[in-house]
Amino acid sequence: MPTQAPVIAFDADDTLWHNETIFEDVHARYRHMLAQYHDAATVERTLFATEMRNLDLYGYGVKGFTLSALETAIELSDGNISTNEISQLIALGRDMLAHPVVLLPGVAETLATLAGTHRLLVITKGDLRDQERKIAKSGLAEFFGHTEIVSDKNADAYASILRRHAISPSSFVMVGNSLKSDILPVLSLGGTGVHVPYHLTWEHERAETPPANDGHFFTVKTIRELPSLLAHLGMGG
Amino acid sequence: MPTQAPVIAFDADDTLWHNETIFEDVHARYRHMLAQYHDAATVERTLFATEMRNLDLYGYGVKGFTLSALETAIELSDGNISTNEISQLIALGRDMLAHPVVLLPGVAETLATLAGTHRLLVITKGDLRDQERKIAKSGLAEFFGHTEIVSDKNADAYASILRRHAISPSSFVMVGNSLKSDILPVLSLGGTGVHVPYHLTWEHERAETPPANDGHFFTVKTIRELPSLLAHLGMGG
Repeated sequence: MPTQAPVIAFDADDTLWHNETIFEDVHARYRHMLAQYHDAATVERTLFATEMRNLDLYGYGVKGFTLSALETAIELSDGNISTNEISQLIALGRDMLAHPVVLLPGVAETLATLAGTHRLLVITKGDLRDQERKIAKSGLAEFFGHTEIVSDKNADAYASILRRHAISPSSFVMVGNSLKSDILPVLSLGGTGVHVPYHLTWEHERAETPPANDGHFFTVKTIRELPSLLAHLGMGG
Repeated sequence: MPTQAPVIAFDADDTLWHNETIFEDVHARYRHMLAQYHDAATVERTLFATEMRNLDLYGYGVKGFTLSALETAIELSDGNISTNEISQLIALGRDMLAHPVVLLPGVAETLATLAGTHRLLVITKGDLRDQERKIAKSGLAEFFGHTEIVSDKNADAYASILRRHAISPSSFVMVGNSLKSDILPVLSLGGTGVHVPYHLTWEHERAETPPANDGHFFTVKTIRELPSLLAHLGMGG
């Protein structure tokens, strides 16, 4: 049994609030805009390929997505897309950034409960300004000791955060919807991962191989199950 | 005399390496592209207004600049700009992100000297991924204990960094080219500011009122003067 309550870190997009639903809605409009040029599958495949090609330069987030969507729209329409449609895409990107933050069910209550017994962090990736704004708009900022916004969620990034906050992996629990970004790198460091699946997963976040259940990996249906899981693990604070 | 060597923090763009020159070059091409629609002054004024209108949503950095430049180009051409020109602007943005990092004269030697006696930080704003990449490409990363990438360089942001690193303002020196972002907020907290002017300043970074010289504000012509200034101030480590 740990002598100290573990630190619980949360992913943000699609773990604390809806995000992929906003992208899905924009994708649907995008496919509609390009339907006269190509079928939906080609539009999606080409956009994803553009995003992956640009990922190293743009990083994650809405602004890079918008630029990749513009580039793909010009390519798929052979330059025949109108400047009016390009303006619409730019405006869609702005709307995504200005979108209200809609919390997932149970998030506010669960964080309020856990904040009384545990040190809580947010670890998220994407546009710096956008993630800061969402945390501020979420009304959840008071529950978190620190917010870490990183450009990529790999083992090095987590190791650096653990070092900076003097957290031992054995008393670190990461909670998130992405096996690839939230769970696998944390398990590789000896931490505990709690997967809370969201009903949509961006293709890039899909993990090839789900982790083995070795006593450090757990799945819950909703974040509401987290306090009882922690209690069951002797990590209840 | 401080009993401990102060912590020296450096701005990055236009303090450690050239940045505004890259923007200037892109601005010149942009004015040329739009010259058939409007004179240079109108193009610049409108682009700046678009950037300021979008600043809260986009934050600082190349991706937001590119999106604002696209929006402005469509507006100033009444939608008559070609998709080929739009593709060129998107490619210009990518080129800016992929641009080599060119250090300012004296930077590498001065940092190598100071790293032997002082704790050095980078404090910069802009796109997370872009700033991380530039620090990596600069070859300077080894000199810095920490890199702080913030969405805006105001007094709150500096106060939070000082708190996080347990640095007292009286032993904190910030070195940078922007009076508005690097000097004034640090002086307001009781720290020391060393201004190293760059030959170009983005309109948004111009300070209305230069700070009074109250023993905490200094100007040097090049970063090479920094070690002797610190020695003169009894902050030589």
